[in-house]
Amino acid sequence: MTAGQVSAADIQAAAERLRGRVHRTPILTSRAIDRLTGCSVFFKGEHLQRGGAFKYRGALNAVLQLTDEEARRGVITHSSGNHAQAVAIAAAERGIPAHLIMPEDSLPVKIRAVRGYGGVVHLCPPTLADRATTAARVQAETGATFVHPYDHPRIIAGQAGVGLELAEQVSDLDAVIAPVGGGGLLSGVALALHHAAPHVTVFGAEPSGADDAARSLAAGQRLPQTDPRTIADGLRTGLGACNWPIIKQHVAGIITIDDDAIIAAMRLIWERLKAVIEPSAAVGLAALLAQPHRFDRQQFGGRVGIVLSGGNADLDRLPFGERVIR
Amino acid sequence: MTAGQVSAADIQAAAERLRGRVHRTPILTSRAIDRLTGCSVFFKGEHLQRGGAFKYRGALNAVLQLTDEEARRGVITHSSGNHAQAVAIAAAERGIPAHLIMPEDSLPVKIRAVRGYGGVVHLCPPTLADRATTAARVQAETGATFVHPYDHPRIIAGQAGVGLELAEQVSDLDAVIAPVGGGGLLSGVALALHHAAPHVTVFGAEPSGADDAARSLAAGQRLPQTDPRTIADGLRTGLGACNWPIIKQHVAGIITIDDDAIIAAMRLIWERLKAVIEPSAAVGLAALLAQPHRFDRQQFGGRVGIVLSGGNADLDRLPFGERVIR
Repeated sequence: MTAGQVSAADIQAAAERLRGRVHRTPILTSRAIDRLTGCSVFFKGEHLQRGGAFKYRGALNAVLQLTDEEARRGVITHSSGNHAQAVAIAAAERGIPAHLIMPEDSLPVKIRAVRGYGGVVHLCPPTLADRATTAARVQAETGATFVHPYDHPRIIAGQAGVGLELAEQVSDLDAVIAPVGGGGLLSGVALALHHAAPHVTVFGAEPSGADDAARSLAAGQRLPQTDPRTIADGLRTGLGACNWPIIKQHVAGIITIDDDAIIAAMRLIWERLKAVIEPSAAVGLAALLAQPHRFDRQQFGGRVGIVLSGGNADLDRLPFGERVIR
Repeated sequence: MTAGQVSAADIQAAAERLRGRVHRTPILTSRAIDRLTGCSVFFKGEHLQRGGAFKYRGALNAVLQLTDEEARRGVITHSSGNHAQAVAIAAAERGIPAHLIMPEDSLPVKIRAVRGYGGVVHLCPPTLADRATTAARVQAETGATFVHPYDHPRIIAGQAGVGLELAEQVSDLDAVIAPVGGGGLLSGVALALHHAAPHVTVFGAEPSGADDAARSLAAGQRLPQTDPRTIADGLRTGLGACNWPIIKQHVAGIITIDDDAIIAAMRLIWERLKAVIEPSAAVGLAALLAQPHRFDRQQFGGRVGIVLSGGNADLDRLPFGERVIR
């Protein structure tokens, strides 16, 4: 399994492989948000995907393509977040072991969730070095296949389903905005729309405190993520090597927004769509609210798709109300 | 407009009157909640209704039946909650004035919401006497028609749509559980199912700190609500005179649950359905979790509908996390 291009056929094959196995998530709309933005906004509800995030699509696409011999030895990944849950559920669906390397300071609720799906949790000290050491040890012991959270063609082909479904569910879209962290979702969505609905312009949305994608696009080369600081914990990673060329070629721009704007957009989605989403999922609306003139009916047709990437918010530490410490 | 019986024809007429004007709200499901309860649970998502609660159905049904002469003088009601928003939106839909008597200590966000829908807010001191005086004065000045939050046949016929849709959307339901405060929702749902799906057994769910419906059913006569204490602010009112005989005749039982159970159920719905619901909307699941044996596949067929009545939670004062004061 090496990195490489993702073809239209790969995306189509992933869609067929995943049909009936992943949720075709609904489109949500709000009159109030349409009024506020001057657009017709179509939210793709991946917070309602299995495991509470789009991550399940790519993880299952990878797990289903293992040979029987590979599958028998199981899968392994490291994540303290949505990808760990996605891999655990995907492995359970195929009936194979999942080894999850998680930092000792992960939220107990997340560790319980992964175990609840049948995953084997290996706790390690919360440093990158310890994580790599632990992962290498467990992989050597088990022979499990590593499932990357974003930097692999099979992951990208799986996440592309979000873009395919959006194009099927909403006619005549003018633009789509998706969050960008490692770039698995954004590269998949951009590539899917390039093939299925090439008139749609795709934008990424990124926290200004973790803006490697915006800097990379401006520089024309992939730049590292340095010292990311944002409430959007799913978007602190740097762009992947497989993801970058797709984003460079098929994404029209990256809009950066600060954490206050992300929290305001998150609150608006909670209040108006009644949807429990995590901060990372709010960046698309935050980007639209920051630059509505760029998308409205006069300038850009006004039919905008926004990907709500996940709903695994930490209910004990919400960024609302005067009693919450940020 | 006097109190009286609600017929099957009234319910059908309301459904036709409201068709295309109220949202046909979706059914939500969760594998985790099914596992936990041993049932197949179908949540009716009225938190996604216009105004964020089922209240809009009854309010609009009442507003649409005003004569042109009545309509010209507008409508009036008193509420600090979902009914005020519902009446404001319904009046705006018909293009007539809405006067909302609201206590001075209402949350600013609720006052802004009502004004945002075009309602005229009349603030009054937060006592029942002041509320009545203010309402009488404004009604005398305007000639507006009072729209009761629950105790009127037209309101009941409107809320009945929740039951009709549930029966259409989910085949072979065994039981339905709905919250009960004033009884508008529960009486409407019970009556609708009595006519449309008479094999379905209907239960009410009520906070143990505001249990007049349970006490009334046990006593065989309508008893007053005394000193209600519960986090479920929508369920602190006492049973209405029109609602009581319907509930007495068509509801199999009232299950009471304490506030801790309500908060736990609310949290489960937020985590698993990713639905922002208010505490009052969590009582149905709390009741099922308290007595799952009563509903499971062995005892009761196991196909249970639960009404999520509203989603207007106060995001600044959520009952989750250690920093929240209850």
